[in-house]
Amino acid sequence: MSAQGDSPYLIAPAPGAPGLTRAVTGTDHEGRAQTINVVEERPLTIFLNAQEIVTAMTIGDYPEYLALGFLRNQGMLKDGEAVLRVDYDDELETVVVRTDGRTTYEDKLKKKTRTSGCAVGTVFGDMMEGLEGVTLPDATVRTSHLYTLAHVINTTPSLYLEAGAIHGTVLCEGDRPLVYMEDVGRHNAVDKIAGWMLSEGVRPYGKMLYTTGRLTSEMVIKTALMGIPVLASRSGFTAWGVEIARQVGLTLIGRMRGRRFVCLAGEERLLRDADPDSVAEEDAKHRRKSARKEENP
Amino acid sequence: MSAQGDSPYLIAPAPGAPGLTRAVTGTDHEGRAQTINVVEERPLTIFLNAQEIVTAMTIGDYPEYLALGFLRNQGMLKDGEAVLRVDYDDELETVVVRTDGRTTYEDKLKKKTRTSGCAVGTVFGDMMEGLEGVTLPDATVRTSHLYTLAHVINTTPSLYLEAGAIHGTVLCEGDRPLVYMEDVGRHNAVDKIAGWMLSEGVRPYGKMLYTTGRLTSEMVIKTALMGIPVLASRSGFTAWGVEIARQVGLTLIGRMRGRRFVCLAGEERLLRDADPDSVAEEDAKHRRKSARKEENP
Repeated sequence: MSAQGDSPYLIAPAPGAPGLTRAVTGTDHEGRAQTINVVEERPLTIFLNAQEIVTAMTIGDYPEYLALGFLRNQGMLKDGEAVLRVDYDDELETVVVRTDGRTTYEDKLKKKTRTSGCAVGTVFGDMMEGLEGVTLPDATVRTSHLYTLAHVINTTPSLYLEAGAIHGTVLCEGDRPLVYMEDVGRHNAVDKIAGWMLSEGVRPYGKMLYTTGRLTSEMVIKTALMGIPVLASRSGFTAWGVEIARQVGLTLIGRMRGRRFVCLAGEERLLRDADPDSVAEEDAKHRRKSARKEENP
Repeated sequence: MSAQGDSPYLIAPAPGAPGLTRAVTGTDHEGRAQTINVVEERPLTIFLNAQEIVTAMTIGDYPEYLALGFLRNQGMLKDGEAVLRVDYDDELETVVVRTDGRTTYEDKLKKKTRTSGCAVGTVFGDMMEGLEGVTLPDATVRTSHLYTLAHVINTTPSLYLEAGAIHGTVLCEGDRPLVYMEDVGRHNAVDKIAGWMLSEGVRPYGKMLYTTGRLTSEMVIKTALMGIPVLASRSGFTAWGVEIARQVGLTLIGRMRGRRFVCLAGEERLLRDADPDSVAEEDAKHRRKSARKEENP
């Protein structure tokens, strides 16, 4: 793994990349024409071998990682299962993951059919099952690293800062952000990271996930299934997200803004080596686009 | 329809209601014990007659409206189709919608099975199909009403203000907010409103939806399927959301904060009868909980 130039990132957002945003013209509150960049959103249908599995709404970057990560996080790709090829078709908006041998997708399909084919319900059920037997590695989270990561991530040029209406998830190690993925789909960003880890053979030990999204049950479950022991977010919690984090022994840190954060699970992994008073508050320009509009007339 | 006391609402949020939030204790950035209210999140499995359709993650209020609205917005309940009973079972976390005669769900089921039972893909496909032939009623949106609605809604006690990590959607008429629903599930809040409209026989003419969530394709499609001609939000847009709004002739207003907003579709319905300069900026305490924590040490 080698970084891009001076950037700490192996993969960083490309807010200027063609096809990720579109300039749209409307009128503002004073009736003046206003052109703003809005993020793209397009369907991507994921196949596992011959089987259509899901259609995800995505900004469209890293479709191969999204497909691999989605299948991995749904338990449809097992550890050590060989992935022969991943074929993305831009025109058909499909990506096909080809594996050798028999995958478990046939069982999943039977189950889906039995439950009237509801991915939401069944897949969620599968994910909960997958949690049984999950044990997360020990880890030490230095608050000095948390603050460094939050600052670097929040000042990294991104679709989140440029266009808003998008979620970001960053795979971190120590005080270094490694891979920063963004997507309109709530869980696509974390799935893309799972797909990258699978492709690169990157292990979860010593890793942390940072997300701009809410710490819901599904987010906590995906992080735990990836074997990553720490999940931090700018946003808030749901009760079940906290409950599951405590059950599986995951460290859950939320409402992380400037010097503030709240840790609702896995407190024992925190090493408080930074003085919060020495941490600067966030600059308004590093908040959500929509929030920035509000602060900067 | 009669309002609750002096409130303009027929249904208003009940942030203090038991079972919607839970007090959870953790530690803050200075290592002090901190107890915060977090929203509940629990599965609700929706049946249409004998058929299991979906499991939604929800805060748990108004399960009957959620079930009716979800089925309606997925095209599984047709206009004029008689709903005999809606049975909610708190213990089993299920709600069963019973209709007379043959519903279309069997076709949907066949389709789902054929597409490996992916609700995400199939249901989305069904929703797009449902858009064909949708024509939205004329309407006039006074900007003075928009500002009044935003102010009343943003100062209404809600889970959004009390606990955060939740989305709200409000059915409005003129300058009056009628029904304010909240949920952790991104689309549950709007489905609950659809369910309420179906139960009460409320027509979409002259109505507007206000949401705290992003204006994605699915949000725009649901609003159009409900026959509501105007959708406004505090948050941003996706390109496809804008594209679909323009195709179906829906008025789309986003980034609505204080005096600011951007209209990216259906401009012709706007009647600019308010002077933006006379509108106060938002008070920090009426922003997202997570954002408030940042502004108010």
